[in-house]
Amino acid sequence: MGTSFEEMWADLGGVGRLTSTGGYFRQPFTDAERECAAWFRAEASTRGLRLEQDGYGNAVAWWGTAHEAVLTGSHLDSVLDGGAFDGPLGIVSAFAAVDLLRERGFEPTRRIGIASFVEEEGSRFGIACLGSSLAVGDLSVVRAKSLKDRSGVSLGDVWGNAGLDPTSGSSLLDGVDCFVELHVEQGRYLVERDESIAVASQIWPHGRYRFDFEGEANHAGATRMEDRHDPMLTYAVTALAASQQARLTHERATFGRLAVEPNGTNAIPSRVTAWLDARGASDTSLSDLVESIVVRAQERADADGTTVSMTPESVSRAVAFSGDLAARLAAPHGWPIIPTQAGHDAGILATAGIATAMLFVRNPTGVSHSPAEHADMNDCHAGVVALADTLQELAR
Amino acid sequence: MGTSFEEMWADLGGVGRLTSTGGYFRQPFTDAERECAAWFRAEASTRGLRLEQDGYGNAVAWWGTAHEAVLTGSHLDSVLDGGAFDGPLGIVSAFAAVDLLRERGFEPTRRIGIASFVEEEGSRFGIACLGSSLAVGDLSVVRAKSLKDRSGVSLGDVWGNAGLDPTSGSSLLDGVDCFVELHVEQGRYLVERDESIAVASQIWPHGRYRFDFEGEANHAGATRMEDRHDPMLTYAVTALAASQQARLTHERATFGRLAVEPNGTNAIPSRVTAWLDARGASDTSLSDLVESIVVRAQERADADGTTVSMTPESVSRAVAFSGDLAARLAAPHGWPIIPTQAGHDAGILATAGIATAMLFVRNPTGVSHSPAEHADMNDCHAGVVALADTLQELAR
Repeated sequence: MGTSFEEMWADLGGVGRLTSTGGYFRQPFTDAERECAAWFRAEASTRGLRLEQDGYGNAVAWWGTAHEAVLTGSHLDSVLDGGAFDGPLGIVSAFAAVDLLRERGFEPTRRIGIASFVEEEGSRFGIACLGSSLAVGDLSVVRAKSLKDRSGVSLGDVWGNAGLDPTSGSSLLDGVDCFVELHVEQGRYLVERDESIAVASQIWPHGRYRFDFEGEANHAGATRMEDRHDPMLTYAVTALAASQQARLTHERATFGRLAVEPNGTNAIPSRVTAWLDARGASDTSLSDLVESIVVRAQERADADGTTVSMTPESVSRAVAFSGDLAARLAAPHGWPIIPTQAGHDAGILATAGIATAMLFVRNPTGVSHSPAEHADMNDCHAGVVALADTLQELAR
Repeated sequence: MGTSFEEMWADLGGVGRLTSTGGYFRQPFTDAERECAAWFRAEASTRGLRLEQDGYGNAVAWWGTAHEAVLTGSHLDSVLDGGAFDGPLGIVSAFAAVDLLRERGFEPTRRIGIASFVEEEGSRFGIACLGSSLAVGDLSVVRAKSLKDRSGVSLGDVWGNAGLDPTSGSSLLDGVDCFVELHVEQGRYLVERDESIAVASQIWPHGRYRFDFEGEANHAGATRMEDRHDPMLTYAVTALAASQQARLTHERATFGRLAVEPNGTNAIPSRVTAWLDARGASDTSLSDLVESIVVRAQERADADGTTVSMTPESVSRAVAFSGDLAARLAAPHGWPIIPTQAGHDAGILATAGIATAMLFVRNPTGVSHSPAEHADMNDCHAGVVALADTLQELAR
C-alpha cells in the first residue's frame, strides 16, 4: 500500500508555494518542479512501480509488464502563481486509484501507467503541452531546444543541465492505445448541475498570439499628446476589443501577459509586447475571433501612428475525444459529457490517434490558474473511485 | 585648457549605452553611472577645479574660492534606454564654458561651480530630482534610505556600498545664490521658431501616481467572459481615459510603466499596477486632470467588479523661475522665454529660494527620453557660448 491521498496531497502542498499569495510557482526544471518530479519517483518506488523516463523530462510509473498499455496521469508544473489542483490532482488521484485497484484485488491484463508530462502549462518556454507534444512527435527537438525562457535561457541548455539527452527521444507511449486524464474542472458546469464527475467531449481550439506594438519613445512630460506615437494606447484599445469580441461570440480572449519597453514612468513606451490567449467554439470561429481583434488593433495603430504585428506562437485545433470511449465510461455512472475550453496533454494524445478520455472533478467556484483554485476532498475521493473504475474497465 | 567639447562628448558616448537600441542605461550607482561620475572627477581635475562631494552622491567642481557662488551643471544619470543629451549636455557644456571663459581671460569675482546631481530622473528609486531634493533639505534622509529599487535593494544599502555617509549631509549649496542649468529642449518650440537658445519661464507642476488595479486571477480559457473580474480591462480603459483627458486640456498624461501579476499568457491577471505621469498647466488643473482619470478608472472598476486605488508617489508644484533673472539673461541676446513640462534640479533649487534660470538648446525633433534624442553640434556650441556669457554676467 502506498501513502494515502491526503498524505500525498500534504507532501506536495508546500512545494513551490509562495506564502504571500498562496499560489504555486512550479515552472519546469526549476527547483520547485524538480522537487515535484522527485516526489513522483518516490511515490512510484514506494508502490513498486517501474519508472521509465524519456529524454524530454516526461516520466511514467508502470504497473505490470504487458505490451498493451493504458495510460493515465497529468502534469506537475503550474502556471505562474497557480493553484494546487491543475495537474497534480490527476497524478495524485492516479496513485490513489492504483492503490484502490490493488485493494480490490484487481489484476490488470494490460500495463497501467501513471504519466507525468513536463511543461504542460507553457509557463516557462511558451508552448503549452510541450512534453506530450515532443513525446508524440508533434514538436521537433530542434525547435524545442531553441526555445528560450524569459531570462533568455534555452530549453536545450536546461535539458543539458538536467542531464537529459533529447536526441534519445521517447518510448513512453509504445504500446499505449488508451489515455485517461483526470483533471479539476475549470468552470462551473458541475457546480450548476450538482454533480461530482463529468467526462469530456472535446477541447475547444485555442492559441497564443504575440502582438508587437511599436511606437516612438519620448518624454512623458514635454511631448504634446498630439505629437505622440504611443504603443500603450494601441495596446489598450486592442485589449478592450479582444474582450468585447469574445463576449459577443461567447468565446474567450485574454491579454494576461505584457512586456513594456523601456517601462519607465516618465517615458512614453517605444514598444509593448502583449500575448493574446484566444479560444473558440470551432477552428473557423477561433480564426474569425483573432482576425477581428487584429483588425481593431490595426485600425487604432493607424490612428496612433504606431505599428502592430501579430505572430501566432501556438495554435491548437479543436480536439474531439473518442465519443465511443466517453459514452462507454459515462453510461454506467450517469456522468455528464461536457466540452472544455482548456488545453490538456489529453488533447495532444487524442490528436496523435490514441483513444483518449478525460474525467473532470467538480470545482466549487470554477476558479482555476489561481491560488483560489479548489476542489472539495469528497469530490477528490469520488474522482479517485471514478478513475479506478475507469482503469479497471480499460485494463481488465 | 581642458579637453574639448567634442572630446568630452566622445568620452561619455559609450558609457552605459546598449548597442541594440542605442539608448543609455545610467541608473544611479550602477557601474555605468559610476563611470560617468569618475569621468566628472577626472574633468574637474584636468582643469584644476576643486572637487567637493556630499553624503548623497552629489558633486561640484569649483573654480575660485570666494564665498558667494554661482552654480551651473545638471545630471549624469539617464532614464531607462534614454538619450545622450538629457543631463550630460548641461555638464559637458559647463566644463566647455569654463574653458571658454578662461580663454577670454575672464576672472570671476564669485566662485563658479559645476554641479552633478544624483538620480535626477528617478529611474532607479522612483523619486525624480532625488539628489537636489536632499541637498536643499526637501527630502528626509530617513525616507530616502528606505527607498527601494525594482530588485528590492534600498538606497541606504546602495549608499553604504558606495562608501557614502548620508548623515554627513551636504554643504554644496553654501554661498550659492544663483543656479543656471543648461538642458536640451524637450519639445519643438525652438525648432518651430528657428532659434538655437531659449530661457525657461516656469516648470509645469507634475506628479507620479501609482494605480493599483485588483481583480480575480482565473483560467484564461475556461472562464466565461461574463464571469471575469479582469483588472487588465480596467487598466486599459484608464490608460485611454488619461490620454483623452490630457488631450482635451492640452496637458500631459502617460502610462509608461506597468507590472502585471502573474503575467502569464493563459491566466487572467490578479493585479495590474500602473504608474501615471501627469503634468498640468497649473497646480489646480493638474489635480483636476488626475481626479478626472481616477473617476473614469473607478467607473470602469465598478463595471468590471475589480478595485482600483491611487497613491500619489511624488507631486511637484508649479515652479516659476526668477522673472528678473530670465529677462536679464535673455534681453541682450533676444532669447525667447518659454515654459517647460519637464522636471529639473533647477526647479528644486528655485523652490528652495535660489535665483534660478534654465537655458534650452534646440532639439531638432523634440524627442527626448529616447535613444533618438538629439541636438546638432552647432547648437551645442551655441549653448556653450550662451552659458559662458551667462556665467560671465552672473560671476563678474
